[in-house]
Parts: sequence; structure tokens; C-alpha cells
Amino acid sequence: MSGELPPQIQNQLAQLQQLQQQAQAVMTQKGQIEGLIRETEAALKELEKSPDDAVIYKSVGELLFKSEKPKLLEELKERTDMMDIRLKTMAKQEERIQGRFNQLQEQLKISLGQMPPKGG
Amino acid sequence: MSGELPPQIQNQLAQLQQLQQQAQAVMTQKGQIEGLIRETEAALKELEKSPDDAVIYKSVGELLFKSEKPKLLEELKERTDMMDIRLKTMAKQEERIQGRFNQLQEQLKISLGQMPPKGG
Amino acid sequence: MSGELPPQIQNQLAQLQQLQQQAQAVMTQKGQIEGLIRETEAALKELEKSPDDAVIYKSVGELLFKSEKPKLLEELKERTDMMDIRLKTMAKQEERIQGRFNQLQEQLKISLGQMPPKGG
Amino acid sequence: MSGELPPQIQNQLAQLQQLQQQAQAVMTQKGQIEGLIRETEAALKELEKSPDDAVIYKSVGELLFKSEKPKLLEELKERTDMMDIRLKTMAKQEERIQGRFNQLQEQLKISLGQMPPKGG
Repeated sequence: MSGELPPQIQNQLAQLQQLQQQAQAVMTQKGQIEGLIRETEAALKELEKSPDDAVIYKSVGELLFKSEKPKLLEELKERTDMMDIRLKTMAKQEERIQGRFNQLQEQLKISLGQMPPKGG
Repeated sequence: MSGELPPQIQNQLAQLQQLQQQAQAVMTQKGQIEGLIRETEAALKELEKSPDDAVIYKSVGELLFKSEKPKLLEELKERTDMMDIRLKTMAKQEERIQGRFNQLQEQLKISLGQMPPKGG
Repeated sequence: MSGELPPQIQNQLAQLQQLQQQAQAVMTQKGQIEGLIRETEAALKELEKSPDDAVIYKSVGELLFKSEKPKLLEELKERTDMMDIRLKTMAKQEERIQGRFNQLQEQLKISLGQMPPKGG
Repeated sequence: MSGELPPQIQNQLAQLQQLQQQAQAVMTQKGQIEGLIRETEAALKELEKSPDDAVIYKSVGELLFKSEKPKLLEELKERTDMMDIRLKTMAKQEERIQGRFNQLQEQLKISLGQMPPKGG
């Protein structure tokens, strides 16, 4: 069916599809980071409720290291900051992709409007 | 092929498909919560078998906090209650979607019955 | 295209597809249990290397319970036995599905052999 | 559509598809091992920062074993070495598949060049 479309329109459709896939990939990554942020925030909240001399371990890979509240507070806040920055970078990427998508969609509408009527 | 169907029927088919996707999404979420409930129940069962002075840690994100049986019993029971409520909310959502699905399916049968015979 | 096939053959093809999906589901479950068995066996091996008074925790849901080597040895062996039984049950299921698949495939070949030649 | 292609070309297309699936499978496995290596390297880094008498546990399956820095350093380095070897084996596999893919693609181009022109 699409074989009957003019090459320009086929090209625009292919680009739209590619942008959709890029948007999808960014959304998936954003979701993963949001999940990590939620997890880290839950740990931070529990940490803040703990007494200063609480026995706390942190997991890194398959190991668990005994640590202390003040050190962990610092580490987790730093991590949250870093993840917030990554999230903002991704939000900008998403916006850029969305903008390009809308632009292309407009161009496609114009291209389709210029097609000779079917059958007629 | 569906291009030959009257618009009303195409519309009903699209709605049915959408409802199926919604039902799928609710079922997936239900499955996840059921998994969490099973996990929490296993932890509760193990907790109840433990002596009151048992050494128990709970994991929150990447951290492990030393805790105590009575406190954990309370926390886990509260969590199970919350998840049970979410599960009931979802069961209602599922029912509602199923009801709407059945209704639409009936309407579709009527619409299809009113179609002029093919070929003739 | 399959609309041109006689109903009997269409029916046999649908059954073959269903059996394939069932086989797929059983294989996925088998893979999950095999993964759990491997994990439990690794834990057992590590346990056997540990001194009798080693400090060992076991995780249940989000909790970690302090336990002891002899108790854990017993628990893990019991678990492995249970998973082995489940695995054998699944292997039988798989065989049964495979047998039914082969049988149907033979019947399909016969049905296809009895079809009038195309074009003629 | 592909039913109209000569058998040799159909065969080459099928082989290309199979090679693509093989390449996909190897890439997925490589990604998993790379993830494990990253995890192990993070644990190693944390381990190196720890004092020699640090309290550290390692997880094996559902169990956590109390261990010691020197022993863990050795274990993790050994593991990293093993995973590096597996990664190199996979990189070679990937190369081999890619080489075979390029070769087949060239052969396909030649086969397609020898096809009689469509329509005429």
C-alpha cells in the first residue's frame, strides 16, 4: 500500500516512525531513572527516621557493607542530585523529539494535501 | 479488509480493542501486586516464627536497616492491608472494563446482523 | 489466504498454534524454576563451605533473618527437592504437549495430502 | 510477495534473517555480562575503599554470608576475570556472525543483480 505513496511522503513517514521509536526509548529510560529516584527517596526517608547510631548496611552489587547514617545520608543525597540532573537532560531530549515530531507531522499534512486526488 | 466495514462497526471494533488493552494493563498490575502480597505474606509468616529478640533487617532501596520483630510485624501488616485495598480497587476496575466489553460486544453483534449480506 | 483452506485444516492449524503456545509457556516456567534451582544450589554450596557457627542471614521478601547453618541446610535441601519435583512434572507436561503436537502434525500432513490440487 | 522470488534468493534471505537473530541473541547476552561486570566492578571499588576489618556480607541466592575483605577481593577479581573471558568469546562470536552476514549480503546482491528485470 505505502508503495503507492510518493517518495517524499514515504520518507516523512519513516522519519516520524524513527522519532516515535526515539521518544519511546527516552521514555523507557526516564521511567527507569524515576524508579531509582523513588527507591532512593524511600531509603532516604527511612534513613532520616533512624537514630544516628543505627546499624545500616548498603548493598553494592552482590556485597553488603556496614555503614553509618551520616555517611549514607550524604551518599544518597548526592545520588539523588545526579539522577535529578539526568532526568532533566532526558526531559529536554523528550521535548526536542516531540518538537521535531510535531514539525514533521505538519509538513506531512501539507505534503498529503498536495497529493493528486485518488481515483478521480 | 476492515476498510470495507461501515464506520460504526470499525469504531466499535476499535473500542473493543482499547478495552482489551485496558483489561490487559489492569491484569498486569494486579499480578504485580499479588506477587508483592505473596512476598509480604511469606515475610510475615517467617516473622511470626521468629523469637521476639531475633536479629532482623529490612531492605529499603539499596539500604538494610536493623529492626525488631514487633515493629516489623506492624509495618508488614499495614502494608498488606494497603495492598489488599489496591487489589480490590483493581478488581472493581477489571469488572467495569469487562462489563463495558460485554456490552459493546453485544452492540457489535447487532450492528453486524444489520449489515447487508456480502456478495448477494 | 488461510480463508481458502478447508475448515478441518484451519482447525488443525489453530490447534497446532495453541499447542505451540502451551509448549512455550511450559518452557518459560521450566526456565524460571531451573534458574531458582541453580541459585539455591549455589547457596547450598556456599553453605557447605561455611563453618558451623557462621553468621548467615536469609532473605524472605524484604526482610533478612539471622539464621544458622544446620537449619538453613535443611531448608534449602527441602526447597531443592520440591523444585526438582515441579521440574519433573513440567518435563512430563512438555512431553505430553510435544506428543500431541507430533500427532496433529501427522494428521495435518494427511489432510493436506487429500486436498484437491491447486489450479488444476 | 517473497513467493515470487527465486528459491536461491529466498534461501539467502532466510539465512540473513537467521544470522540477524543470532547476532541479536549474542548482543543480549553480552549486555547481560557487561551489566554483571559493571556491578562487580562497583563492588570491588567499594571493597577497596573499606578498611581491612570491615563487616561485609556477600549474597548467594537468598542467603547472606558474613565474609572478609581479603577473601572477597580475591573472589571478585577471579569473577571479573572469568566474565572478561566470556565477554571476549562473545565478541569473537559476534565478529564471526557479522563476517558471515556481510558475505551473504554480497552474495545476495549478486543474485539479485542476475534476476531478470521485472515487467520487461
